[in-house]
Amino acid sequence: MINEQPRQPVTVLGLGLMGTALADAFRRAGHPTTVWTRSDRPGPDGTTRAATAAEAVAASPLVVACVLDYRAVEEVLAGGLTGKAVVNLTTGTPEQARAMAPQVVDRGAEYLDGGIMANPAAIGSPSASILYSGSADAFQANERTLAALGASKYLGADPGSAALHDAALLGIMYSAVAGFLQAVALVGREEVSAVEFTPLAQEMLAATASFLPSMAAQVDSGEFTSSEARLDMQLSAVEHLVHAGRVRGVDTTILEHVKSLMAGAIAAGHAASDFGAVIDLLRKPRPLAGG
Amino acid sequence: MINEQPRQPVTVLGLGLMGTALADAFRRAGHPTTVWTRSDRPGPDGTTRAATAAEAVAASPLVVACVLDYRAVEEVLAGGLTGKAVVNLTTGTPEQARAMAPQVVDRGAEYLDGGIMANPAAIGSPSASILYSGSADAFQANERTLAALGASKYLGADPGSAALHDAALLGIMYSAVAGFLQAVALVGREEVSAVEFTPLAQEMLAATASFLPSMAAQVDSGEFTSSEARLDMQLSAVEHLVHAGRVRGVDTTILEHVKSLMAGAIAAGHAASDFGAVIDLLRKPRPLAGG
Repeated sequence: MINEQPRQPVTVLGLGLMGTALADAFRRAGHPTTVWTRSDRPGPDGTTRAATAAEAVAASPLVVACVLDYRAVEEVLAGGLTGKAVVNLTTGTPEQARAMAPQVVDRGAEYLDGGIMANPAAIGSPSASILYSGSADAFQANERTLAALGASKYLGADPGSAALHDAALLGIMYSAVAGFLQAVALVGREEVSAVEFTPLAQEMLAATASFLPSMAAQVDSGEFTSSEARLDMQLSAVEHLVHAGRVRGVDTTILEHVKSLMAGAIAAGHAASDFGAVIDLLRKPRPLAGG
Repeated sequence: MINEQPRQPVTVLGLGLMGTALADAFRRAGHPTTVWTRSDRPGPDGTTRAATAAEAVAASPLVVACVLDYRAVEEVLAGGLTGKAVVNLTTGTPEQARAMAPQVVDRGAEYLDGGIMANPAAIGSPSASILYSGSADAFQANERTLAALGASKYLGADPGSAALHDAALLGIMYSAVAGFLQAVALVGREEVSAVEFTPLAQEMLAATASFLPSMAAQVDSGEFTSSEARLDMQLSAVEHLVHAGRVRGVDTTILEHVKSLMAGAIAAGHAASDFGAVIDLLRKPRPLAGG
């Protein structure tokens, strides 16, 4: 028998759907797992429910928080933190992550912030992508343990970076899903079911993903000259899409926004550019100094 | 040498970027290809430029039109059409396709409408998906020839169906791409390049595609009870996304639309539902009778 090292104990604070999935993934990977939540909800089978938040925090060198918001994180991180690694997987803004980090460090712990790019059901499988940023030492020391949750990506020392990427990526997801439902509403007007339509939608998302690298290169270079589909021709196509939605009584808010971005870019001299040229219209003056 | 059948002659009307790509793909597949366009632009090497539209139409039993709009289709479909198959790949609405079909049939031809889900550069490869609807006979008789353009999908006898699906799918593409650029603008505020960010965006689109089937099943059944992420909790996440964009001066139009859809669904009793429950807010009263 190969020499088995005992697995590192882990504490999970928060037992919502996601916190429960995290605790269960650590437990399945063989880590002694202590859990705590403010309600009287029990932890998953095989985990140890602590009597207090402070007792839960004291139980493990690695403390993972996944609660409602950052205010709740401050409440559950009770007791002494000296020498611990705190991994905060609570959803929040980059600003909240950057404000949280020094509070944790001042209490003698290392801080990692994280963003979970997966549903609870995917936690513990390689398809669950989890972004981390903050203490490089804490990430390296706990990388093997955190691998129990999914595919980890470390984005650098800025504690706000994971939340920034999280916000950007969730924005893509919500845009794509809203676009999908708007399309489902459209074809549904002519008796095409959502299930029937979905394989074509999946293909379209795969095709869209495949041309993002060339669009990204154009955005980075600022050189948008079209080799494929000029904005002025695309504008006429988008007008058809808006028309097709309107006459069927389907919401066209996103498409009208896209149309106005294209019209704005054309007015700015981008008639012969590719779609990426609308990026300038998405960048507005920043409303808050230093925001 | 294996007995080679002569390839069917094909005519392509329209020599924009897409028409040129179509003509070139037929030519590469060995079809004698006749082209015509209103301008004096030459066809791709190896194709035959007709002197008039009528001459071009007369040259082949299969006539493919890819011009600016449906008015231009009427202009280029000159001369006799008896016994021909007309495949109209011009971008338009389902209504335009349904109005065009009987005109072509009245002139003794069969009509197929199509939607090209690809950039010109992809035409001729299996990654170019092309949707067809209209005459089943015309599709079957020309399926092998049309395979030179890409992966064909026949959607049924309604000539408007391809344009309907085209509009729905392009709507998804524009939503996803606008979401991508908004995300690029966001991370760009903190010195993350678009190229650097793109692999994560591609993963997110793949993850999004993977959960569309379960969302579609909920839409078809009308049963949205959440097993994963309740709308009221998602709403608070979307508020973070809007905040992250606003403080960085990044356009949040799509996200605010998503937020208002979620708030509307919650107000309608869907606090504990999955995101698909917003579908009802995308279906509005139809503004035009019979539209």
